[in-house]
Amino acid sequence: MRKAQVTIKEVAVKARVHASTVSRVLNAETRGMVSKSVADRVLAVAQKLGYSVNPLAAGLRTRRSRTVGILIPDLTNPVFPPIVRGAEQTLASAGYVVVLADSNNDIHNARNIVNNLIARQVDGLILATAHREDPIVEECLSRGVPLVLVNRTVEKMPVAAVTTDDNLGIRLALEHLLELGHRRIAFVGGPQTTSTGYVRYRAFLNALKARGLKADKSMMVNASAFSEAAGSEALSKIIASSDVGFTAVVAANDLLALGCFDVLLANGLRCPIDVSVTGYNHMPFVDRFTPPLTTVHIPHQQLGIKSAELLLERIENPDAPARTIYLQPRLILGGSTRAIGANESTQRAAGRSPTR
Amino acid sequence: MRKAQVTIKEVAVKARVHASTVSRVLNAETRGMVSKSVADRVLAVAQKLGYSVNPLAAGLRTRRSRTVGILIPDLTNPVFPPIVRGAEQTLASAGYVVVLADSNNDIHNARNIVNNLIARQVDGLILATAHREDPIVEECLSRGVPLVLVNRTVEKMPVAAVTTDDNLGIRLALEHLLELGHRRIAFVGGPQTTSTGYVRYRAFLNALKARGLKADKSMMVNASAFSEAAGSEALSKIIASSDVGFTAVVAANDLLALGCFDVLLANGLRCPIDVSVTGYNHMPFVDRFTPPLTTVHIPHQQLGIKSAELLLERIENPDAPARTIYLQPRLILGGSTRAIGANESTQRAAGRSPTR
Repeated sequence: MRKAQVTIKEVAVKARVHASTVSRVLNAETRGMVSKSVADRVLAVAQKLGYSVNPLAAGLRTRRSRTVGILIPDLTNPVFPPIVRGAEQTLASAGYVVVLADSNNDIHNARNIVNNLIARQVDGLILATAHREDPIVEECLSRGVPLVLVNRTVEKMPVAAVTTDDNLGIRLALEHLLELGHRRIAFVGGPQTTSTGYVRYRAFLNALKARGLKADKSMMVNASAFSEAAGSEALSKIIASSDVGFTAVVAANDLLALGCFDVLLANGLRCPIDVSVTGYNHMPFVDRFTPPLTTVHIPHQQLGIKSAELLLERIENPDAPARTIYLQPRLILGGSTRAIGANESTQRAAGRSPTR
Repeated sequence: MRKAQVTIKEVAVKARVHASTVSRVLNAETRGMVSKSVADRVLAVAQKLGYSVNPLAAGLRTRRSRTVGILIPDLTNPVFPPIVRGAEQTLASAGYVVVLADSNNDIHNARNIVNNLIARQVDGLILATAHREDPIVEECLSRGVPLVLVNRTVEKMPVAAVTTDDNLGIRLALEHLLELGHRRIAFVGGPQTTSTGYVRYRAFLNALKARGLKADKSMMVNASAFSEAAGSEALSKIIASSDVGFTAVVAANDLLALGCFDVLLANGLRCPIDVSVTGYNHMPFVDRFTPPLTTVHIPHQQLGIKSAELLLERIENPDAPARTIYLQPRLILGGSTRAIGANESTQRAAGRSPTR
């Protein structure tokens, strides 16, 4: 059986004082109300008995649980562990613990989890699951729960968020392919219910337009999820409708790009000899893939750290105006993109370098 | 500001009953003590006002927080997210939330985190951080905290654990290389303070012995951590001391194997043409590496699920004898191993297949 925790009463009996005196001594703010000799005796007894403040009871008194909930859509998507890690370590050093919940990409799950966390009086929430129009976010706002969105934003609501400048990120990928001479460029996007899916799709259209190029909608498909399977499905649709009328693919995340690798291989197309592919996220180990993936780096750990810092700010000051922090993406060159018309030896030289 | 939660008193006033009656009605076990018409009225009012049980207060009464702590050494090691996910989903469906903490491979961190979680009255702990001799485990046992180790075990203490049969796993890797004709096989092990590092090292020696082969200690180095950098360092030591007297390397996990890839490349050795390499864990995406890694699969999600189930058992029945559940590993053939003397076309045929 678990040993019972030492109570204030037990400390009081041993120290031969009233329980309320023990309470006063144990709280640094009221300790001055008690004579030093009594205070010293109580502290010595408390330490000897191994008394520790019960954070649950303290939470009831202070209405602070020193707990933050982090909700993510899928922990096995490699983009999330470093975000969670950055947030957890930042929160831990501020004395908070993190309740982690994985919604498995299911909005009903997400809703139940958030209700449960609010009932447990979490001091705030970090959501990586937000949809562009999200009743969960709305509910948290109306209940006054401090909230920060990470890697996602919502529309028309004043919510704090930490995200990457996806407009710039997609532009970097597209410009890279244009510089390599590609003109017929397919796009495999993400779900349009998510801000990342939506913004990256719009960004692709805008970036084409800025260069005076026309979008060919038969070569653009938005996948139903940010997963390898959905990426395969999307590129298969493009091939079915337009034949292989493209020489390059911009994918809206790395998992989608991996799905594209599979479809290209299954169709006898070599990447990058026949088709170049870019990903997005720079998830771990992409430089070890066959071929190493050219992708857009987002600062995962920083996303986690900044979202935790912003949440701590909001917990202290819940009525401050919500702000969005944009972090900068950058292009990571791999071996999955190459110049139109380059021969194989050029390609080999563009492969991965011996050190990471 | 956050809105105050509805209290039992407010429900009592609205329903025109005493607060103790509300308590009885809200607890299914005591509801029968109240007439059905009163109970229905109280429930209707409670629902209308949006009353919800405060789990912190309930936790103080029942000494159950319905919270489980999971402590892992490094969330960005790809072996852990699926373990955490399996555990979290199993615990969530039993009504528990998971507090996740990442010790960053630091035993002092781990100790602080565990003390904090115990003070918060977690109902139990899942530890993926255990060392072979671990004061944290000892302390949890002496304090009667329900505990399950996952993917690690300790020595000389009666602790519940869910792990893989690493003896079998290493034997599978070694037998595979022997069948391919390799005889000079190097070993890059893990830290000997961890059970996985220790058991896999002993398993390699035992498997050699079982086949009547002699271990060459100059070709065996245990790395200081389960990381790519430590794997590179260990194989560099072997090359420095024995020159390249080996044709194959058994690595005690996939990250170590990736470190070996880097050192081979830096020394102008091609994998698998010059040196075959096996990993351990079958972390996600190893089939996409250059070359796809031959490795030993451990059932990550099942490790998580089983450890959660075992912990729930122990929370219900803390005095039951501790047991260890062993899950079965299996060999995953990639392109990083090949027969001694095979020519390049044989090698190409052994590469990754077009579908995953």
